This record gives sequence, C-alpha cells and structure tokens, in this order.
Amino acid sequence: MKISVMGAGAVGSYYGAMLVQAGHDVTFIGRSGQVSALREHGLQLEKGGTLTRLTVQASADPSVVATSEIVLFAVKSSDTETAAKAMAPFLSPDTVILSFQNGVENAERLQQLLPQTIIAAVVYVATDMAAPNHVRHHGRGGLVLAASARSPELAAMFTAAGIPTEVSENTAGALWAKLILNCAYNALSAITQLPYGTVAQGPEIDGVLQDVMQECLSIADALGVSVPGDTWHEVKQTPLMMPSQRSSTAQDLARQKPSEIDYLNGYIVRKGRELNISVPVNRALYALVKLIEMKREA
Amino acid sequence: MKISVMGAGAVGSYYGAMLVQAGHDVTFIGRSGQVSALREHGLQLEKGGTLTRLTVQASADPSVVATSEIVLFAVKSSDTETAAKAMAPFLSPDTVILSFQNGVENAERLQQLLPQTIIAAVVYVATDMAAPNHVRHHGRGGLVLAASARSPELAAMFTAAGIPTEVSENTAGALWAKLILNCAYNALSAITQLPYGTVAQGPEIDGVLQDVMQECLSIADALGVSVPGDTWHEVKQTPLMMPSQRSSTAQDLARQKPSEIDYLNGYIVRKGRELNISVPVNRALYALVKLIEMKREA
Repeated sequence: MKISVMGAGAVGSYYGAMLVQAGHDVTFIGRSGQVSALREHGLQLEKGGTLTRLTVQASADPSVVATSEIVLFAVKSSDTETAAKAMAPFLSPDTVILSFQNGVENAERLQQLLPQTIIAAVVYVATDMAAPNHVRHHGRGGLVLAASARSPELAAMFTAAGIPTEVSENTAGALWAKLILNCAYNALSAITQLPYGTVAQGPEIDGVLQDVMQECLSIADALGVSVPGDTWHEVKQTPLMMPSQRSSTAQDLARQKPSEIDYLNGYIVRKGRELNISVPVNRALYALVKLIEMKREA
Repeated sequence: MKISVMGAGAVGSYYGAMLVQAGHDVTFIGRSGQVSALREHGLQLEKGGTLTRLTVQASADPSVVATSEIVLFAVKSSDTETAAKAMAPFLSPDTVILSFQNGVENAERLQQLLPQTIIAAVVYVATDMAAPNHVRHHGRGGLVLAASARSPELAAMFTAAGIPTEVSENTAGALWAKLILNCAYNALSAITQLPYGTVAQGPEIDGVLQDVMQECLSIADALGVSVPGDTWHEVKQTPLMMPSQRSSTAQDLARQKPSEIDYLNGYIVRKGRELNISVPVNRALYALVKLIEMKREA
C-alpha cells in the first residue's frame, strides 16, 4: 500500500516504521532537517531491546501525498489546520486520512477542511524520539479505528503489520477515554518532568487523578459521550503499564516546543466554561503548563 | 535589648539585621557553616539599593538563648519542635518567644513545649538569601503581633527599629490571611520557579487563585476563624507589590531543601480531610510540590 506519514514525531515515526518493516511503500513528511537525517541515515527503530535501521523515503514537500492511498496524519493538534491546508491541493479524492492525534476534535477539524474520508484512530502507544530519525518504543502499540467502509480492510492491514487494530462504533468514547488518561498524566508528568511510575507514587496523587477524571467525565456526560470501560481502572493501570514513560507534553516542554495542552486539559477548561461545569483541577494543571511554556518562551 | 534570632534564614536574618542597626544586642543562632561566615565576614543587608555590612554575634549553640530577653523564632515550620526542644533547657522563665513563622499553628505548637510567653507574629516581608550571610530585602517589612501584656512594648521597640508593627486582637485571622496568600502563590511560584509578577500574568491563573482562596476560606469558616480584610483584593495586590519575588517555597526547591508546603497547602489538605471539605486545587498544588521534592531527593 502507498502510505504517507504526515508529521514524523514519536507517533508517526513508530507506525510508519512498523509499516515499512511490513513492506509497505511509506513516505515520511517532515521538516527539512529531519528529512535530511532520514534520507542520509535512515530511520532507527528501537524496540524490545533491538535497534533496527530502516532505509526510508522522506520529503519536506507535502505534494508527495498525491500518490498515497492512505495518509497517517500525526501532527500536533495545534498544527491540524496548517498541515491539512498544505496537503489539500494534492490529495486524491479517494485517499483516506487517518487522524493519529491526541484530543477528541481532530477528525472533525480535518473533515471541515478536506472532502476525503477521515477516520479517527485512537492510538495506544508509548514512544519517544531520541533524535529526529530515531524513535524508541516503550510499550503498547495498538489502534482503534472509527467504523467506516474502509476500516475493516485497514484494520487487517495494520494487524498484519504487527499493529493490533480494532474497529469501534464508539471511537468518540474511546478518544475520550484516552483524553482522560492524557488529562490525568500529561500535565503532571510535564510539570514535574517525571515518568508516570514516579508520578503515581506521590502523596495525594490518587485524589488528584480522581478529581481530573471526574471533571472530565462530567464534561463527557454533558456532551452525551459514553466513555467505555472502567475509567478509574485505566487511570490506575497506566503507570503500571508504562512506568518509565514521560508524557508527550513533558517531552515538548523539555525541548521548549509548544505542547498540546490546549487540546487536553485546556479543552476540558474551554468546554467547562461553555457548559458552566466547574473543572478546577484541570484548570490548575492547564495554567501551570501554560506558565512553564511562557517561561521557556521568555 | 538582648535578643536571640533562632533560625537565621531570609526572615530571621532581615529582622535581626534591622535590630542590630537599631543598636540592640542580637545573637544569631544557626548551623556552624553559617555561624563561621557571620563571624568572619559579618551579615550583609541589601536594602533599597544599599549594601550594609554588619558586625554580628553568632553561635551554633542554642544555650546562648539563656541571657536573651526575647527570642525571634524564625525556623521553618518543619523544625519547630526540634528547635524548641534545643532551646528549652536554657530559656529563662520570663524570656518572650516571638514566632516569626509561616503557617497558623506554630505558636500553639511552641506553647505545647515551652512554658514561656509565646507571641505569634504575622510577618509581611519579601526577602531572600544571596548567601548564608547575605540577606536581600525586596519589599514590605511590617509585623502584626498577637495581643499580650508585653506586645505594646515590643511593638514600640520594633517600630523604633524601622519595623512598622501593630498589635492585633485577631492575629489568628491575620495569620490566616497570610496563609491564604502563601497557599495562593507559594506553590505556583515554586512549581514554575517564576516570580509572582509573572505567575499572575498566566492564562486561567485568576481562576486558580480564586479556587485556592475559596477553599481556604471554607476551612477558616469551619474553624470559626474570621479572616480580616478583602482577601481577593490582597491576593490581587501581592504580585503588584512584589512582582520580582519568588516564594520561599520556590527558594527551598531551587536549593533542594525541604519546603514548608506541609504547613501551607498541605495544612489545608489535612484540615479539609478532617472537616470533610473538598479542597481539590490546594491538593493538586500540594501534590505537585511534593513530587518535585521527591524528585530532588532521588
């Protein structure tokens, strides 16, 4: 299958690498410095104690999407509109765009700009970038795709490439379940620059996690979203499954890059204001991350 | 007047220095390294653009309190019991101990260990230590003393030494008013390592400050404490009056020293649990400071 990966960060690089290994024709689209590194030195995938160097195609020019049957859309939520507009003139009408992003609104935001089929994916993976052409896998790796005519075929393709993938009729709920985990841990890990396993051991943290979760569930409920599963169990499991993982927000702050906090706790704060629902702990975490971002910009 | 300063940090050093300048016989009690610096190089007071080097008496031996008429007790809240027990065998029965500490319980904790007159003082000053024998004044400097037979005379002594001092029948309320300012700003400044003026400019910070204040006022109300003044006005004024000040908690974390957070937001968390009052934002701020302390200990 001909595939483009738009945004070769920790998520895009990992899934792109898995698809390269499975023999697909993958092109990574990134900034020119990263593209040079990928072309000259290949993409390094570090997983399960093994470092594999993959020869890959890379381009800084979004027009390469023209021949792609699938686009894995893995840019930060803050770049959704810009990246969509950059691809739009070149996309074939029957290209399928998979949103591999955090947050709950990206598929909708993409659909407002693109007539193509947009499929929301819920991404369950712990990865980070050791260098612009070196992705490290720390845990998990599965996907949940929103139901569509194309989803069963795509799920089969991913699963065959070593990416366990399910199709769900309630992706909105699954995206919310993931949003709640992100709201619970991303800011705490970012503010303290600590991994999930250490965060979970702090005094009073259980209560803070409960507060964040309940505030998010109040918003989900008001929006008519049914969050599947036992959310508190998932919150408690996260640091056990990924004890050494620092959140993507922590990675962004450490690199002085803008984070996605506006689409995580910041989204809850906006919806709380719209719906007149009090979300004090999400607001405090959001405010702290924004202050640290301001500091790094200063 | 013969005066000992027990704990020569940013508060004890400042008030001790002001009393030395006014001609009082002051001995600073600290750890041996600090005592050596004070004896060899004097105490440097930086205030209003002027650096003054004061020749001072200093000792690491708490028995020097024996000849003191007044002890300015300015150790961290976490050291109250240890420092009180160290002084106890040497104190004269009519020595007066002034608690110059943050938090609302220190005078009571001292009175449980010492039969002497204990007077709670509410300290309004912005200072920090540039070195163990170098204190910098950044703003304010007044005191409020709890009413007692000795308080008017002591207030006159402090005022004559350039320390504007009032006597109040509601020191509990004044200590609470200060506790609320500490709960509002100490953790935010510590977590972000930013001064108050910058903290106050962050998005959503006003709401966070409101939440912290309301949670604290709920606890004060349940305890029957009447907090004087317009608390929200005080909260809003603090960063305007001390824009460049980093909180004592920020200074402690930066130096990898244990902070007083257990007696600030941590006190609110404990009282909230006892009284069954929800204090989610104080809890989140407390949990974050504790995580950062854990990290620095690791």
